[in-house]
This record gives sequence, C-alpha cells and structure tokens, in this order.
Amino acid sequence: MVSSALPGLVALVALATSAASDAVKVKWLESPPEYNNGVTFGLPWARGQYPANRTTFTASSANDDPVQLQSWITAYWPDDSIKWTGHAIAGSETVYDSYKITPSGPGNATLSNLRRQTKANEITVTDSSDTLLVDTGKLVVAFPKAGNALISSIKTASGKTIGKNGRLILKSQSGIAEEGQSGIEYNDFVSKISNLTISKDSTTRALITVQGIHHLDGNSSNAHVDWLPFTVRFYLYANSEAIRTVHTIIYDGHAKSDFISGLGIKFDVPLTDEELYNRHVRIAGVDGGLLHEAVQGLTGLRRDPGKDVRSAQFNGTVLPDKSTWDTKVANGLQYIPAWNDYRLTQLSSDGFNLKKRTKVGQSWVKIPGGTRAGGLAYLGGATVGGLAVGLRDFWKKYPTSLDIANAATDEGSITLWLYSPSAEPLDVRPYHDGLGEDTYAKQLAALEVTYEDFEDGYNTPYGIGRTNEIFIYGFDSTPSADKLSALTKQSNTPPVLIAEPEYLHSTKAIGINWNTPNSTSGSAAVATIETHLNFLIDFYEKQIEQRRFYGFWDYGDIQHSYDADRHTWRYDIGGYAWDNSELSPDLFFWTYFLRTGRADVYRLAEAQVRHGAEVDSYHLGNFTGLGTRHGVQHWGDSAKQVRISTPVYRKSFYYLSGGDERTGDLIHAVLEVEKAYVLVDARRKVRKPGVVYVPDPKALYLNFGTDWAGLASAYLLEWERRGPRWEEARDKLVKTAETYPLLKNAFVTGEALYNSQTGAWSPPPTDPGNNGNITISHLSGVFGVLETIDDLIHHYADIPKPFVDAWIEYCYYYGATPEEQQARYGVAFADRSLKQGHSRLTAYAALKTGNATLAARAWNEFLTDSSLDELSPDDPWKTERIGGSDVLVEIDEAPWISTNAAALYGLSAIENLAFVGGPK
Amino acid sequence: MVSSALPGLVALVALATSAASDAVKVKWLESPPEYNNGVTFGLPWARGQYPANRTTFTASSANDDPVQLQSWITAYWPDDSIKWTGHAIAGSETVYDSYKITPSGPGNATLSNLRRQTKANEITVTDSSDTLLVDTGKLVVAFPKAGNALISSIKTASGKTIGKNGRLILKSQSGIAEEGQSGIEYNDFVSKISNLTISKDSTTRALITVQGIHHLDGNSSNAHVDWLPFTVRFYLYANSEAIRTVHTIIYDGHAKSDFISGLGIKFDVPLTDEELYNRHVRIAGVDGGLLHEAVQGLTGLRRDPGKDVRSAQFNGTVLPDKSTWDTKVANGLQYIPAWNDYRLTQLSSDGFNLKKRTKVGQSWVKIPGGTRAGGLAYLGGATVGGLAVGLRDFWKKYPTSLDIANAATDEGSITLWLYSPSAEPLDVRPYHDGLGEDTYAKQLAALEVTYEDFEDGYNTPYGIGRTNEIFIYGFDSTPSADKLSALTKQSNTPPVLIAEPEYLHSTKAIGINWNTPNSTSGSAAVATIETHLNFLIDFYEKQIEQRRFYGFWDYGDIQHSYDADRHTWRYDIGGYAWDNSELSPDLFFWTYFLRTGRADVYRLAEAQVRHGAEVDSYHLGNFTGLGTRHGVQHWGDSAKQVRISTPVYRKSFYYLSGGDERTGDLIHAVLEVEKAYVLVDARRKVRKPGVVYVPDPKALYLNFGTDWAGLASAYLLEWERRGPRWEEARDKLVKTAETYPLLKNAFVTGEALYNSQTGAWSPPPTDPGNNGNITISHLSGVFGVLETIDDLIHHYADIPKPFVDAWIEYCYYYGATPEEQQARYGVAFADRSLKQGHSRLTAYAALKTGNATLAARAWNEFLTDSSLDELSPDDPWKTERIGGSDVLVEIDEAPWISTNAAALYGLSAIENLAFVGGPK
Ligand SMILES: [Ca+2]
Ligand SMILES: [Ca+2]
Repeated sequence: MVSSALPGLVALVALATSAASDAVKVKWLESPPEYNNGVTFGLPWARGQYPANRTTFTASSANDDPVQLQSWITAYWPDDSIKWTGHAIAGSETVYDSYKITPSGPGNATLSNLRRQTKANEITVTDSSDTLLVDTGKLVVAFPKAGNALISSIKTASGKTIGKNGRLILKSQSGIAEEGQSGIEYNDFVSKISNLTISKDSTTRALITVQGIHHLDGNSSNAHVDWLPFTVRFYLYANSEAIRTVHTIIYDGHAKSDFISGLGIKFDVPLTDEELYNRHVRIAGVDGGLLHEAVQGLTGLRRDPGKDVRSAQFNGTVLPDKSTWDTKVANGLQYIPAWNDYRLTQLSSDGFNLKKRTKVGQSWVKIPGGTRAGGLAYLGGATVGGLAVGLRDFWKKYPTSLDIANAATDEGSITLWLYSPSAEPLDVRPYHDGLGEDTYAKQLAALEVTYEDFEDGYNTPYGIGRTNEIFIYGFDSTPSADKLSALTKQSNTPPVLIAEPEYLHSTKAIGINWNTPNSTSGSAAVATIETHLNFLIDFYEKQIEQRRFYGFWDYGDIQHSYDADRHTWRYDIGGYAWDNSELSPDLFFWTYFLRTGRADVYRLAEAQVRHGAEVDSYHLGNFTGLGTRHGVQHWGDSAKQVRISTPVYRKSFYYLSGGDERTGDLIHAVLEVEKAYVLVDARRKVRKPGVVYVPDPKALYLNFGTDWAGLASAYLLEWERRGPRWEEARDKLVKTAETYPLLKNAFVTGEALYNSQTGAWSPPPTDPGNNGNITISHLSGVFGVLETIDDLIHHYADIPKPFVDAWIEYCYYYGATPEEQQARYGVAFADRSLKQGHSRLTAYAALKTGNATLAARAWNEFLTDSSLDELSPDDPWKTERIGGSDVLVEIDEAPWISTNAAALYGLSAIENLAFVGGPK
Repeated sequence: MVSSALPGLVALVALATSAASDAVKVKWLESPPEYNNGVTFGLPWARGQYPANRTTFTASSANDDPVQLQSWITAYWPDDSIKWTGHAIAGSETVYDSYKITPSGPGNATLSNLRRQTKANEITVTDSSDTLLVDTGKLVVAFPKAGNALISSIKTASGKTIGKNGRLILKSQSGIAEEGQSGIEYNDFVSKISNLTISKDSTTRALITVQGIHHLDGNSSNAHVDWLPFTVRFYLYANSEAIRTVHTIIYDGHAKSDFISGLGIKFDVPLTDEELYNRHVRIAGVDGGLLHEAVQGLTGLRRDPGKDVRSAQFNGTVLPDKSTWDTKVANGLQYIPAWNDYRLTQLSSDGFNLKKRTKVGQSWVKIPGGTRAGGLAYLGGATVGGLAVGLRDFWKKYPTSLDIANAATDEGSITLWLYSPSAEPLDVRPYHDGLGEDTYAKQLAALEVTYEDFEDGYNTPYGIGRTNEIFIYGFDSTPSADKLSALTKQSNTPPVLIAEPEYLHSTKAIGINWNTPNSTSGSAAVATIETHLNFLIDFYEKQIEQRRFYGFWDYGDIQHSYDADRHTWRYDIGGYAWDNSELSPDLFFWTYFLRTGRADVYRLAEAQVRHGAEVDSYHLGNFTGLGTRHGVQHWGDSAKQVRISTPVYRKSFYYLSGGDERTGDLIHAVLEVEKAYVLVDARRKVRKPGVVYVPDPKALYLNFGTDWAGLASAYLLEWERRGPRWEEARDKLVKTAETYPLLKNAFVTGEALYNSQTGAWSPPPTDPGNNGNITISHLSGVFGVLETIDDLIHHYADIPKPFVDAWIEYCYYYGATPEEQQARYGVAFADRSLKQGHSRLTAYAALKTGNATLAARAWNEFLTDSSLDELSPDDPWKTERIGGSDVLVEIDEAPWISTNAAALYGLSAIENLAFVGGPK
C-alpha cells in the first residue's frame, strides 16, 4: 500500500474527504491492470465551475489513499472556466479499482501536502547541451538532441545500462524484382533527429517529442534524399519502468519508386559479463503465452545439470554456481549451441512463424509457431537486466516482426518491425492505370458504374500517415514470465481511466447529443432501438474479425457496402470499399461509447481515430488537412475533403485521452485546409458549365456541410484548446455566425463564398445579388455538421440568434413536406434522401423549438424511411451464416446493412433519444 | 446407375455372384467421395490360392453392378501364387459404397464380358515420335518426350484446349541478401525432360513417368549447371477428368550457395474469345470455402446489370447477352477493372493472405484471407472451359502459394508453388558451425551432452528428396463451386479403397505380428492396453497439430523427446528433435491401422512414409539408400544408417496403395546401401581401438539389426515384387539363412562380416576363429528386425531351420535371466535395456516354441519394465493442459512420453497380443 509507509496522513485524508462532493470518479475501462506504469486520462467540467487560473487537482483512491497526480488544462469555456483537463497518475505498486480526482483552489492544503509527500516520486529532468536525461525513479533515459539515436541509453535505478542506441530504421527499394525490373536499389535508413522538446511540467509525466527524418545509413553507396519524416513521442511516468512510445511516420516518397520494405525501431542491449546460460529470450505468443529460452539452454540435455539449474533457467533467475552442476554438463558447455538470433514473423493476421539460429551463415531452426502473437520481445540477463519492446495490435497490423539479434555476443539487440522486412514490400501505387479516364466526363461516367471518383494524380499516398504505439520496458533482472505476459496484454490494451457516462453527460462539455440508455423511458420502442444499436456495434466488431479488416494501413477502418451476390464487402469496387468515415460511423461509435462506457466500443472507436485521422487524411503536400473519400485504396479517390478529416470524429478520443498529443496535432492541422481549398476545388467536376471559379482565399466556394463544418470543428477545437491560432479561429467562427444568416436562404443556400481570412460569408457567384440560391444536398447534413454546430452553439453562449435560427430552420425544412418547402422557399427541395439520417436534424429542431409535433415527425422519419441508406424496424436485425463453397471463409452476413445506413441509424437513434426522448 | 443402360447383364451378374465366395470387399477409407476420378488400391492374397499366370480379376458393386477394373500383380509368393495385387478402378459417375474384387481363371466369362461392356471407357494411347497422347474419354493429354513442358496440352472431350505448356519451375539464389552478401545471383529454371515412360497396360489407368532436371531458363545471363532432378508421375484413369500427379525432387545443390526460393508447376490456360466477364477465378479457402470471382466483376456495382447477370457470374455460367443488361453497365464496361493476377500465400500453417491486381506495375489489392487454405486454384471461362490445380496438404507443407496470372489476356496461367517465392529462401545449411568438434573424441563428448552425433560433411542435405501430390482437373466449362469444393477436399484426402482388417489378416501376406482388437480375449488387462494404444495414437495426432509439425520438409515427422522444463519437444537439442523413425513409430502406426482400419491412423502413417522415405533418406551421393539418425535437422546427424530408411516402414503403404510407384522406387533404392557400406562405416567412431576395418564389399562389418535388417527388408521386397534384382536378392537371403547360423553365437554375435556380393556371413575380425563373440545392443532388436525376419520366415517357407532357431534363441535370451545367459553363452549380457520393447521378441519365441511360461515372461517384461524408454501401467495416461505464460501457445503435454517409449510400447503391445494373446 502506498499509504502504509507514509507518516502524517490522517489529516491529509480528512482534507481529501472534505472535498469529496466535488470529486470525480474514474475507473479502469477494462479490469484493473496488473501493473500501473502511469496513465493519462481526461475529464470534462461544466461551464463556469472551475476557474482556469485558480483550480488545482488532487487524486486519491476510493478510500482516500493519496495518489500522485499531474494535471493540465486541455480545453476552456469562453468564460475562462475549465472545460477539459488532462491528468497523469504516476506509476505505482498499488493499483486501485478506481480513483477520485478532486478540483480545489490554489491554497488548498490537500495539494501541498500531496506535493510534499509524493515529491520523492517525482521525475527529474537534467538538461545538458546535447542530452535530456529523464529519471523516473525506476529508469534513467537519455534523449540526445541530435544524431541518429532517439534514446542513447536506458539505465535501471541500480545503474545497469539495459538499452542503448534506440534508433528508427527503414529499409526501402526502388522497384519490385518480381516485376522484372533490374537495377533496383536497396537502401537502409536510420533516424536523424531535427528537433526535440520536453513537456513543460514533467513531474509525474514527462513527454519527450522527437522529430526527424529517415536518413541514408552511412554505409550506403547509393544516393537517396532523406525521407519519411517522423514524430516520436516518449511518455515517461514517475516510478515507472515503462516508456510509452507513439511513433508516427508520414509517407512522402514516390509511390512508384519508394517501396518501404522494412520499418522499425531497434535497441542494443548490453550483455557483457552475463554468462550465456543466464541470458534470456522471451517472446510473446498467443493469449498471454511466452517463449522461454536461454541463449544457451541447459534443459532437455542428455545429462541433467541439476533440477535447480533447469528451473532457474526456465524462470529466468540466476543459475546456481557452475561448480554445483553435474560435471558432464559443466564440462560440455562448449558443445551446447548458443542461439544468437531469434525472429518472429507475423505475415498474416492469422499465423506467425518463429525461428532462431546460432549465427549468420547457418540455417535457422524453426520453433513451433501459432496464430496471433502478442508482439513483445525481451532480451536480457538474470544479473545484467534487460529490455522488452512491445507493439500494440501487433498481429492486427501485420506484416510485423520481431528480431532479437546477437544475443550470444557482448551486445545484443531487439528490433521491432512495424513493417516486416520478411514481407513483400509495401506497395502504395494506384491499383489501376486510370482505365482511360482522362476527362471529367469519363471520370463521371466511371463514377456511375463503380462509384469511384478517379482523377490522375489525386490517387496519391503522398502525405498520409500512420501512428503506432510501442512500449519499452526496462528491468534490473529478467522479470517473471507472468509479468511479461501481463505487460504484453497491457501493451495491446493500454490501461485507460475513464469517468462514468453520467458524469460525462452532466458536464455538457462533450455534446448534448447523447444520453445514457437508462435516462430514456423504457418503452418497448426504445428497448427495440437499444437492441438494434447493440446489434450494429456487435456486427461491426464481428465483421472486422471475420473480414480481416487488419493490416499495416487497414486496421481501424471498416468497409462501405456489401455485395450480396458474392457474400463479401465490396473491397474491390471503386467507391464501395474502405469506408473512410463516410457518413460518420466514427461519431456513432464514439457517442455509443459515451452513453454506455463499454470497453469494446472504446477500442473499436479508438482504432477508427488512429486510422481515419492518419491514413485517410493528408499531412503533407497540397492536400494537407483534407481527407479522402471512400475507395479501394484509402487514398485513392480524387475527392479530397475535410468531411473525412473533420476533427469532430477525433474529439471524444482527444479529450478522453487527456489530450493525446498526436491527435492534437492532427486536429490542429485541419486548419490548413484553408490553404488546401485554394489548391483543390472540391466541386471542379460537377460545377455547372458557365460558372467560373478561381479559388481565392478571400472567396472560397464552399459547401457548409462538407467543406465548412470540418473546418469549423477545427476552429472550435482550436478555440477550446486555446491553441496557437485560437483567437483567429474564434474570430472566424464569430464572423461566420454573423455573416452566414445574411445569405438570403442561409443554410439552404448550400454553397457560398467563404473568406478564409475573416470567416465572413458572401453570396455564391451564381447569385451575386443574394436573391436566394437553393442548393440542397443530402451530404451536407451527414458529416458531423449538426454535432459541430451544436457544439459551437453550446460553447459560444453569445452566438448571434439569427445564426442559430437559420440552423434550426435548415433542420426543420430538410425533412418538411414539399408544400412547406414551397411555401417557405418558393420551391420544393429536389434532394430529400437520407431521411432517417436527417431525422436527428428534425429532432434537434424539436428540441430547440420545444415543438412536440416535430418530435413525432423526427421519429416518423426515423422509423418509416424506406429510401436507400436507412435501416427499418422491418429489417431482419440478425445475421445469416454463409459457409460451404459460397465463400472463401465462413462468415456472418447482413446484406441489408450498408455502413452508410448503420452510421446514420446509429447516430440518429442516439441523438433522437437525447433530443426528444423515445418515440411516443 | 452404371448397369441400368446396359443389355445382357443378367447372365453376367449371375456369373459374378457365383464367384462371390472368393470375392474380396473393399470400401472407402473415409466416407465415399463425391467424385470418382479413378482410384488405385492393393489387395493381399493367401499363399497358394491364385496362380500368378492364370488368375484374372473383375470388380463389381456390392449388388453386382459391373465396374471397370485393371489389375496387376505387386508381389508373389515363392510358389508363384499371387501375394499382392494392385487394382485400378476407372472414373465413374456412380460412386459405390464398396466394391467386390473377384479373382478367377483366364477363361472366365465374367472377365471377357466385362472387358466387352467396358471397352468404350478404355483409355487410348497414341504414341508418336515426339509425343504420347493419352485420351481418358474426358481429357486428352499430350506428353512430349523432350523439351521443357511435361504436358504440352490438355483438351476436353469436346476439343477445347484448357491447359498448355505444363512445366516445372524453380527459382534459386546463390546467397542471402539479409546476411550482407553482395553479388547474389538469382536464377530461374525450367524443367528439361530426359526420359519418359508409360505403363505397359494402360486401359483403365495410364501412368506416365517423366524424369528430368531443372535447367536454366533461356533468358538468363547467369550460368548454373542443371540441378534438382525430378521424377513426375502422371496417373490418368479412364473416364476421368483428373490427373493425379506425384512430383518428386532430389536436392543436389550446394547448401551454402543453392537456395531454393521458389519451386512450382505452371500451366498456361487459353482464354481467347472468352469475354472478361465470363472468365472465372476460383481459389480454395477454409473448410471447403471458395473465392468466387470473375475477371471483370459485374456484382456490387453502382448500377445493376440485372439479377440473371449477377447470379450467372457468381455461379460461373454464361452471362445473358449483353444486349439484355442494364445499359449503364453495358456501356460502362471499360470503367470496370479487369483483375489480371491473383495470389494466395500460405506462409505459415495458420494464416494465408490473398490479393489481386489489375496488372504488373499497379498495386495489389488485398482480399480478406483466413487460416488454412485448401490449396486449389481454378482459372477458366464459362464457354472455353478451364483448369484447376490443387496441392495435397497445401497448408501443412507451408510456405506454399498459388498464382493466377494474365487472366485478363488471351492466355492466363496457374502456378502452384510447392515452395512459395514469397517466403524467405529455403535454407538447408547446417544449423551450427561444428562447435569445434573436429575429432571423434570431441564428437563423442558432444554426443554425451546434446545427444547429437556430429561430423563435418555428414550434415548434408545432398541427396534428400521430397514428394508432393498434385491434382490437375480439366473442365469443359467452369464447374460449380460445390464441385470444386469437393475436389479440393479430395485433393487433400485422396480417396482410398481398402479391405477389411479381418481379410488383410487372414491372408498372412502382411505379417502375423498383429491381430484385430476383437480377436483378443476381452479381459480388463487387454482393454486397458487397447485404451492406452488409442491414447498414444490420439496423442501424436494432437501433438502434430499443437506443435505445428508442419512445413515443406517437416510434415510427416514427429519429434523424439520432450523437455518437461520448457513444456516443449526438444526441437533444438541435438539428437532429441526430429524423430526420423527412431525405434519404429512408423511400424506402430501402420500395424495399428492394419488392426483397426481407422482412417485417421492411415493418414498419420501415410504422412510418415512420405516424409521418412524422402527427407530422412538419401537418394543420391555416397549415402544413397541410407537414412539419417534423429536430430535438429532431418539430415543433420552423422549416423547414416539403413535402420532409418528400412523398407519395412514403407511396406504396408506400398502394398495397400496398390504399389505406389514412388515408394516402390524408394524401396528398391535401399539395395544401394550395399555400396554405401563401402563408403560409410557406421561404427567408425565407436569401434574398439586396434580393430582395423577397411570396408570391402565382400566383407562388410555389419550389425544384424541396424545394418542388415534394413537391407534384408529391401531384399525381401525385391524378391516378393520380382523386381529387376529379385533373384539376386533372393539368393542373398538364402545364403544369409544358410551362413548366419554358422556364426558360433549367431545373432548374439551382433556384428560380423557380410559379403554383399553373395549374402554370406563370416566371423568378425575380432573373432576370426569363430570362437564366439558376444555383442549385445539394445538397438539391434528395435528397428524392424523382428518384423523383417518373421516376414522372411513366412515368405521363405523352406528357410533353413538353424536360421529360424538362431533367431528364436536370440529372442529368448535377450530378456532371459543373467543366469540363463551365463549358462548358455558363458557371460551375462551387459545391455538389457528396452525391455518393454523387446518383450515382443520374448512373445515371438513363445509363439514359435509354444512355451506358455515364455508368454507370461513376455507380458511381465512388457508390464513391469521400469527402465528408460518404456511406458508403465502406472503412468498417468492422460495429458495435462499447459497455458498462460508457461508456454508460447497453449498445449497438452505428457512429459512421461518419449517417442522411443511410445513406439516400443505400441508395437510390443500389438505384437504381444498377436503372438501370445492378452496377459493372463
Ligand atoms: Ca480508410
Ligand atoms: Ca525427419
């Protein structure tokens, strides 16, 4: 127990208890982890409650044992009260089931007492000219400010160096031998640091951010520019033996000549002075399984060295002195091979191979493998200590591999391959040659057939990214297998602390568009909807597994439409393949998580964030900040739009995670679409002939739903977070709120001119006199615009009423009768599809106007829509097992589900329930 | 029904029935196959029953429908009566549950009537100067007599050419890039035919045997000698659309510079005049699953071409005329990608990947994969027909792959990769550098520690082989998915016809060393033994799966000893890893099959034959005919002995399979050890100092059990089969039977001089005066010597009594009391281990002498042995589940089992029961 050894805690506990009324409880998302190596989480706070400049936070267990905490603000209400906080808890021997976080004023004794009593556990940072030294109390980690190694050394508290020269490595080739190319160059690159920063407050948690690029390895005779920029974040916690590492790369190569053939991180592990038989290799297998090997094994021999010798080796403890062994073994050691290298390759999501060899130049020996490896490797010694490196979602992100090398020499190494060099090279070229689609007309004709929106040059991976989570653990001696097994589990499902749904909801800091299932009347109709929501979540979780939505780029995405004839998702058909967040399944998953707190849903939604924000979005080049429409390749479609990259999809994760810094970067980067809009005209292929449009930062021709809403979400988050451009972002939102209602038909105008330097809107070029354009698109309302505008309205309490009214009017009229539309706008809307998906707009209007008839209309739209992309109460709401020769692999299918429909059903159901309660 | 359309069958049926008393029933090993594409099987016959020169055979169904049959003799009793026959049944639409095989004289009306009525279904062979043309009635297959293509064309009965240019392909490289070597040469080879033969009688079954070597492809600028000789056998049956193909290669490269990086068979598939949307790709998935794709898919599009179009494409039938389609699809065809290439890779036993691409130079697109693929691929068209190629045990022999290429061009192709070019190259170098073991003394010292018997130069794969079974199917149009699924199943478990155990036993043609479980009194003691036998079989079946005893070289082997500390078989410890048939598990499995008829046991034992006879034996070079002792690599140990390659392990499979020709070759090749004994002195490291031995064909210093018994088995089989050297083989056995008893102590002499030119034995150099050497080794009696000598005694009815008596004496005295040994030989035997394993020798002596006391001694030895390598009634006889962090993958273990012990227990239990009945 933390408290037991500490004097003078009675008063402290009493103080903590006295503040309990304000305390917020957080608990583990899953069951409590076996080890707490420190954790970060986020909490929302209601408007006006806690002034940003004079609130501090303390943490304790449920029964008031104090817990070391570091806190920071991740979002502000406009009144300077705290909207969101991030918190870090230090590593600890005791892991509580839940924690209480208590906000209090600056003079509060609780805090200073806590500070005092936990000071011994604080991180110390030593900043020298070339190195940052971070001491967690368990590990001392040296971060060089330049050069190739991101980590130059890791020492244990006792002073043993257990890791060295931690660097990124990249292998690439200029062509594919199998395609008959000759003169292919094979290159090896190593990380080159360009920038290093450390978090300001690094008492409980230190964050070291290293940026750089992959640079040709010194030995190479080839020439290749530096490429594949990286950002690697190292999170260290007080009293922790773990380094959480968030590894991000951006692809900036040439798809046809820069094939990644290996991408990894490598550490050297000093082993001098450790006997070969005291050196241990541990590699994670299936379901917590672990390979137990010694570099020189003494079990299973013809002669028994002694039971204690064998069991010590299996358990990873120091062997009894050699003089105590059976002499036949002691004298025959030179005839027992030492295993220098180990390699685990996970080249498919379903099977891994494992092998070892005595040295280069000799054959590998197969070790029986299995299905899905845990993705962690340990190398070390019973006396010299050792290092473990693990990759989250190792098998889900295949092809991956793990190398342990030179274990029989003075300096071994561990390489974690995020992309395995044993796999065929990563190929990001277009999947077809353009099919002759060299004009907009042909591209539109093709769109009619395959739903693919092709345009040469737009199908580029230049600028997409991928982020991986790596865990580095340092040990003073070889840890127990159970411990490594537990850490493997934690590397794959990193412990998350989270508040209860009821608390999250009560703060109104994360939307009013959801409520908890318990808070809606338990009518049969509501119960059916809840059953259906649960069905959809389960369905996608199962589809991910059955359809193997796994892989380096792919994990975290789902697919768009189903081919009932072939019993397969349309993985190969133009715009029907990877979903790229089309119509907001991300929002469905996140809001479903918020209302239920279900761990599986958090993990489902988290993977979407890590995919969509990285792979489906651009981080470099002309498209920076934009996403890509759904397609066979994540980046293949020529529609580059912010509707895919919109921060509204990442917001919940960002705040709940305590402000995940990579996600923060991605959210901020969406502001860059102001520039992208000058370079990319989203409606270039479909604009009416005669309308001349030359993009101008002061007059961008944008759709409010598919173009502005994502940018607005970025503005709003910048404002909340008080990011570097927050005042500018706020001012633009204010200007929009003032100017948008001036458009004659406001949101019904659909597309108008946006001044990206001020936020002001003006009439479209087709209606310079502002006589009232009408451009209705079913797409405008289904990419988070409602959720963004409502967030804005709630955040910006003084928002001009005409803006709110205009929005409510749009919400009302989209689903109104043609007669009503005619009466209001002089014309009935042509496009009224996605009625179920838009029912939440109706419900929102009902909420805002208090109109009960409108609430009924919303549910009617939700329940009786029979157009495309809806789910009806009459649908089967079950899957069917398809097997035998009909399919490659037996699966469960629901051909009546499209992801468009599922996302809209899910989100509309949740929001309708929240806005107007259940159907009457 | 076959009979219904045929006139005049009444008399025929009557005749067939009249001979029913002699008819032998054969039934399918597993449930009857869905398709009968012809099958071969073997039947034994009792001595003196059917004269070889005037017996013919007919076949019918159980209710006497005639069945087309071809028969041949595979073994003769010395009195010229038939000992074993092989039979081939033609392909047929009707598949009966069982068949009756009736032997009869040459004038028998049954035969001639059958001949007459089935003549229409006979194979026709057209032999021209450069090609053999074989017409099965369903397929016309052209086999060139020279060049690269083993099959130049396959046509359907209607004249469509559905396969062309079937050739073998090989890729190799001279080094491993990853090891830092530069200047690596990459080579492509293609088959070059050196010899082609066809079976003499080819009416119902034609066997074309093609021999050759892999020759550098014409385009290469490198230089490499021809290498990797092959023998490929094509089995064609009347009325069959399948070509069973048995593909054998012998490794004759240099392990350090000839790395196989791809090994396969490739067919071109003409597709001219087939619309892209009528071309079909089918690839076998998991458990009968099948990928259904068209080269140009019309399902799942934005616009529906029409339900009939979609369903025809899924089902592989001709699409309705394009004029009937929705015009949006018909006019947009150019925008629907055509998929030129497909690739399935099974790089581990547990997971496969699948992908396709539109063309070279474009990215592959992932198709969701799965666990274990069926290993069959089809390419063809609804109107032009197509070809399917399947590999038996595809996933069990990973890394394998399937390529379909150029499907969108006029000529597609299917490549079946027996070794996938997507895997890391095949590495057959030694796994260690010799560990300094440069003298016999050091090698023997190492043997004491790791049980590995190392010697530089002996750890060579030069001359080992591997045989794969491939199935080629030709179709007039794309077949149904169900049919391809059924054929995939049949390619993996090729249908086997087999007689009942009772019949097999009654003929005494396959040993008297087993009986059926029912024939031994049902005492509790016997029931326990039966339970234990069943336990051991189940245990090994489960270990093969759980320990992944799979892979290109490995499938078909099991491992030798267990490491209870690490909960793993000792895969990495010298002589404890791959079992290489040590102490005859093969015989245990086969005799257990014979007595039970269990299909799973047949498959288990069959895989052992295909492994042991190929990978653990040499087929080229100095070691030809010898096997290799157990070790980390199958070929790694320096003990090259016939005890591993002995034909006694292959005999059951050879005869039951109707004389599998590859196995026949391997059996015959063991005769070559006469030469190998001149080159390899098995006891060179352990011979007493002072004994000078220079191998001489006329005076080979051999142990009767580990050296001669295997050769004797080869002689006996050559004699039975009347192979090319049968009279020589017979004469040598006769000479041995005459001369061996002249050794003063006969079998107790242990080692003596063998004249390999005559079969005569003379005293060992240590006892030139024949005063009576005594050399007892526990190994002499446990490599099939009892089974071989008993077969010889039974076959060679006139065998000299002194030889038989000498053998019975050895059987008696090995387990006799020291006092008895002392009384008889003047000294008690030093080595009396493997008592349980030798109890069957005691039981054999009991049988032969009728001594009931001896029978009791046998059971006593069996049940009370407590030395190493035995299993006791007190053992647990259950497995324990080991999971969690103790093991890489959860497994069931039985650390009390070694394969030595299991093999000896199994074989002794079965033989003791057969020789003396159950324990009293
Ligand atoms: Ca995507
Ligand atoms: Ca073997």
